[in-house]
Amino acid sequence: MSEHTHIYKPFDAELRALKDQLLAMGGLVEAHIADAMKALVERDPSRAQKVMEGDRAVNAMELAIDEQCIRILALRQPAASDLRFIAASLKIVTDLERIGDLAVNMAQRAIALAGEPPLRAVVDLPRMATAAQKMLREALDAFVTHDAEKAESVITQDDLIDGWLVQVFDEIRAEMQRDPSVINRGIATIFFAKHIERVADHATNVAEMVVYLVRGQDVRHRWAR
Amino acid sequence: MSEHTHIYKPFDAELRALKDQLLAMGGLVEAHIADAMKALVERDPSRAQKVMEGDRAVNAMELAIDEQCIRILALRQPAASDLRFIAASLKIVTDLERIGDLAVNMAQRAIALAGEPPLRAVVDLPRMATAAQKMLREALDAFVTHDAEKAESVITQDDLIDGWLVQVFDEIRAEMQRDPSVINRGIATIFFAKHIERVADHATNVAEMVVYLVRGQDVRHRWAR
Repeated sequence: MSEHTHIYKPFDAELRALKDQLLAMGGLVEAHIADAMKALVERDPSRAQKVMEGDRAVNAMELAIDEQCIRILALRQPAASDLRFIAASLKIVTDLERIGDLAVNMAQRAIALAGEPPLRAVVDLPRMATAAQKMLREALDAFVTHDAEKAESVITQDDLIDGWLVQVFDEIRAEMQRDPSVINRGIATIFFAKHIERVADHATNVAEMVVYLVRGQDVRHRWAR
Repeated sequence: MSEHTHIYKPFDAELRALKDQLLAMGGLVEAHIADAMKALVERDPSRAQKVMEGDRAVNAMELAIDEQCIRILALRQPAASDLRFIAASLKIVTDLERIGDLAVNMAQRAIALAGEPPLRAVVDLPRMATAAQKMLREALDAFVTHDAEKAESVITQDDLIDGWLVQVFDEIRAEMQRDPSVINRGIATIFFAKHIERVADHATNVAEMVVYLVRGQDVRHRWAR
């Protein structure tokens, strides 16, 4: 399609395309989180390596979505709720890109940890990662469907992840105190868990943005993080 | 000034006001980082408490700047470089708000660490914090003055901080291995150092945005993070 026919696409179709791009980027970073988690559990550095290489595609999507938002602002000069939706998209795409970066950080830790036996606390991490992925998926769904209730349920799930993180930290600390030879592994595993928690934080940012868009009130600073 | 006279302000004055707001918010979060650092070094929980309370003002500034950006987009429908400047402001204000959150996280760690003697590695943290604050200040200056060279120099400073972080981690790990009774303090101090490094990452995000705006090329993914 030439640039020229492209600009005559109806506005609704353009918004729909933007939403699809955001969902596709969300699906990609979600898969990267899942793969980085699997790389740790299966002690599989080659899977971790693929996550790191895949981040290039995430970054390309960020740039494309940013440009699409700028283009819509320039050509359509949207007002009211459409304008706020585009402004929110500019912010949300940054959250998605940083979730991609966190998957890379997780993959790097998985590689560092692949050569040694895992700490016991590692068994608790997959459910944390699965919960964070679910929050991300639901937050993005809530964004594209303007569903404030779904977004609010995402925000409440964040406390669960924070609670699990504290448990995991306590377990690892105890393991390190019993056996100081696991200190290196312990610190790397603590960071891995912390990265998962930050994925959930970014999903929460997205969800708070949705509540703001739909209800017209800013909840971004009502919940403690 | 009434809402009405306000909307007749010249566009340049509005942009100038937006830049001043961003600089003021940057100055505030920079002061919070400095105070959280001081709270750790001086083992002063009341100073840390003030940082936590001060975050409310940071959050209010974020909302005000977001609204100001939306307002300019809606009423002025800026084109070309002005449009990109506003879009970048929407992203940068989020980085500033998250730097504010990191100051709160640092303050929380400072409170947790105030009751016990500090690890030796703590003496290395103030220069890291000072360097991160300088990066933030220079990145914001570069943004409001469209100075790509200054922004590029910020980006190169990030490697220095990353190097110091590795040193600090190594020191703390060694201290924990020598004396497992410091494991709790060690982990809290590692997180404190990591928060400083993330402040520098956010400053780098701002600087990369400036290079993009001025040179019209996206460097956001050219430098490894």
